[in-house]
Amino acid sequence: MIRLPFQPVATLKWLAVLLPMAAVVGSISAFFLWALDAVTRYRFDHPWLLYLLPVAGVAVGAAYHHIGGKSSGGNNLLMDEIHEPGAGVPRRMGAFVLFGTLVTHLFGGSAGREGTAVQMGGSVAAAFGKALGIDAASLRILLMAGVAAGFGSVFGTPIAGAVFALEVLVIGRMQYDALVPCFLASLVADWTCRAWGIGHTHYFVEITGPDPHPLLIGKVLLGSVAFGLVGALFAWSMHRLSKVFARWIPRPEFRPALGGVLVIGLFFLAGTPDYLGLGVLGNRPDAITLPAMFTGADIPYGAWAWKLLFTAVTLAAGFKGGEVTPLFFIGAALGNALGHLMGAPVDLLAALGFVAVFAAATNTPLASAIMGMELFGAGNGLYLAAACIIAYRFSGHSGIYSSQRLAVPKFHVGSGD
Amino acid sequence: MIRLPFQPVATLKWLAVLLPMAAVVGSISAFFLWALDAVTRYRFDHPWLLYLLPVAGVAVGAAYHHIGGKSSGGNNLLMDEIHEPGAGVPRRMGAFVLFGTLVTHLFGGSAGREGTAVQMGGSVAAAFGKALGIDAASLRILLMAGVAAGFGSVFGTPIAGAVFALEVLVIGRMQYDALVPCFLASLVADWTCRAWGIGHTHYFVEITGPDPHPLLIGKVLLGSVAFGLVGALFAWSMHRLSKVFARWIPRPEFRPALGGVLVIGLFFLAGTPDYLGLGVLGNRPDAITLPAMFTGADIPYGAWAWKLLFTAVTLAAGFKGGEVTPLFFIGAALGNALGHLMGAPVDLLAALGFVAVFAAATNTPLASAIMGMELFGAGNGLYLAAACIIAYRFSGHSGIYSSQRLAVPKFHVGSGD
Repeated sequence: MIRLPFQPVATLKWLAVLLPMAAVVGSISAFFLWALDAVTRYRFDHPWLLYLLPVAGVAVGAAYHHIGGKSSGGNNLLMDEIHEPGAGVPRRMGAFVLFGTLVTHLFGGSAGREGTAVQMGGSVAAAFGKALGIDAASLRILLMAGVAAGFGSVFGTPIAGAVFALEVLVIGRMQYDALVPCFLASLVADWTCRAWGIGHTHYFVEITGPDPHPLLIGKVLLGSVAFGLVGALFAWSMHRLSKVFARWIPRPEFRPALGGVLVIGLFFLAGTPDYLGLGVLGNRPDAITLPAMFTGADIPYGAWAWKLLFTAVTLAAGFKGGEVTPLFFIGAALGNALGHLMGAPVDLLAALGFVAVFAAATNTPLASAIMGMELFGAGNGLYLAAACIIAYRFSGHSGIYSSQRLAVPKFHVGSGD
Repeated sequence: MIRLPFQPVATLKWLAVLLPMAAVVGSISAFFLWALDAVTRYRFDHPWLLYLLPVAGVAVGAAYHHIGGKSSGGNNLLMDEIHEPGAGVPRRMGAFVLFGTLVTHLFGGSAGREGTAVQMGGSVAAAFGKALGIDAASLRILLMAGVAAGFGSVFGTPIAGAVFALEVLVIGRMQYDALVPCFLASLVADWTCRAWGIGHTHYFVEITGPDPHPLLIGKVLLGSVAFGLVGALFAWSMHRLSKVFARWIPRPEFRPALGGVLVIGLFFLAGTPDYLGLGVLGNRPDAITLPAMFTGADIPYGAWAWKLLFTAVTLAAGFKGGEVTPLFFIGAALGNALGHLMGAPVDLLAALGFVAVFAAATNTPLASAIMGMELFGAGNGLYLAAACIIAYRFSGHSGIYSSQRLAVPKFHVGSGD
């Protein structure tokens, strides 16, 4: 009647693969975050690097084309491998995306880091799996754990990392078979990254309290619909622009040349360097940065649209990096603007936009809500969850990951929801 | 290319059903919580009521048998209806379970309230659906929203209420089609309940901090395995005892007679009234109560086992009520004991046990982790998530709800996890 709920030997074997893998991913994340900071500061001191963006992009594109193998498949290749194991995840993918992302940031492209974290985690997991000769079913779990480890350690949000890895594969359904491995990997990777002395940005949001203020609720709901639509707009812009680039420049390694020139043009149009790079650090006290949006600082109402444009051009042109930190920037900037316009607390609205635009563009409402609680505390948990869920509902069925599958529609035609 | 992501008229129609339904459920929850408090205090003043427990139980059993219709199907009937709509949820179910639960608590049976909340929410939803003649697909969503509203408002944890309603139906997979309706219903029901002036118990847990303490992590992992095994033990005891009662007393309405006598016997064996009833309120300053487990109070190491026995006997005999608050009690008592034995913070361990035994017995790790953050703050979110996920992993595949289906096994034979 009562059986042991686990197999001790098999479990120990699993842990012997999972924990070192997670520690390696966490260590690489630590290096990546340190290097990202270093190249960003170097660019601040040498602003002329921006003019080399087109050349740098073509160099990375050529490296991917000639020696990257299938690495350019990126996040989508990884997701396809988890859905249906095929030819495998190239081990070099991690090194390529790490190097490519640092180049993007050194020369001022507007990009993020989650794509890097996820691909680096996935390729480390693939390398461990290959070296140890594990079977296909276990490799699938290990790849998901690698994604969780990468995401959790780069953002310093281990619970969200695990839930993201489970939630991102399919729209409308989450499967739990990799729950424990993903959580352990994310946890260990995050701890390892912190043990290297790498900290994460702190954002301060005042707690608005558990009691509902009807007027504030109305404003939050309205804002959340806007976050959802902007998340969808981001995904749509990325897909459209990618197609335009592909039509104009058939060979992918040359697309960054045009993309880089366009980013330089946007830089002159916007009249500020604040939409270049990651958007977390600023080179002046009054710079438009992600942390500044949580304060009373003067953020232009159109900052979110500029960042959306800079990022869509950068990434659609084939520069390496992620979408998530720009999504945070876009969301927080939009939240800040809406807070001012609607007379709502700007720190709260910035926090809601931060996670909700991300939820909308990636179709991961629970991971985003949990990330919000990990970053901003559970005091505003209700508003955070509401924003992520409503934004998810209003962002339609196409997110930024084309290999994400649709299991259950977000709403039923006819029944209205 | 760009279509409206919702149908305004259909959405408004949905809201016109959903919001009043949630407000009604929240109001009934408020009455239920108020009445639960009143009958518990009345029992404290009239302890001889315990001796009438067998008679009261038979009276409720007879009422269910003769005029309850299918109401005795309870939570499982509701879950079956959501899986495959059949003959429908009887509208009287809510009134029966409300009345039956109050009787259980007035006469000192050891039970909870989530079964009541869930069934009450489901039957109110069914009544709304029937009155408005909505189609089967929408009714399914509405029933889930009713469950979310009941759970969220009774425990004052609206996010967990929504996730619980999605997560409890199937082990290993969560589907999102009812995410927005469940969340809105849970939110509105919770607000309505609070608007009636009903508060929820507060538990204070000191924040152990985001930095990991290797020794504490080891203790938490060890404790979490224990929470998982005790959650499984609870589910197993309920199923076994139910079968024993059914074999000895074929007619269900008479089983509470024996159950009541056994509870009276347990009361004399234990030598304290503290394992009767809900376990949240005490009639003496040194009573063994749920809130006391978060303090330095002197809780016997065996309190969790006593409460498990009292509750399994009460519920297996057919008394009405829920399992969840006793699961909180069992978990917090076990956590308190483990905290003392292992030299770990008792408030933290009590909080972990509180949610993790619940996660293990109901197979809802994410709802439980989120509930933990809603009740105890996100400061210990990592420990809370770790405890719920590990406990879930170690509790096997049979929970307290026999209509819960298994979609994806928790671990793969052969691969060890």
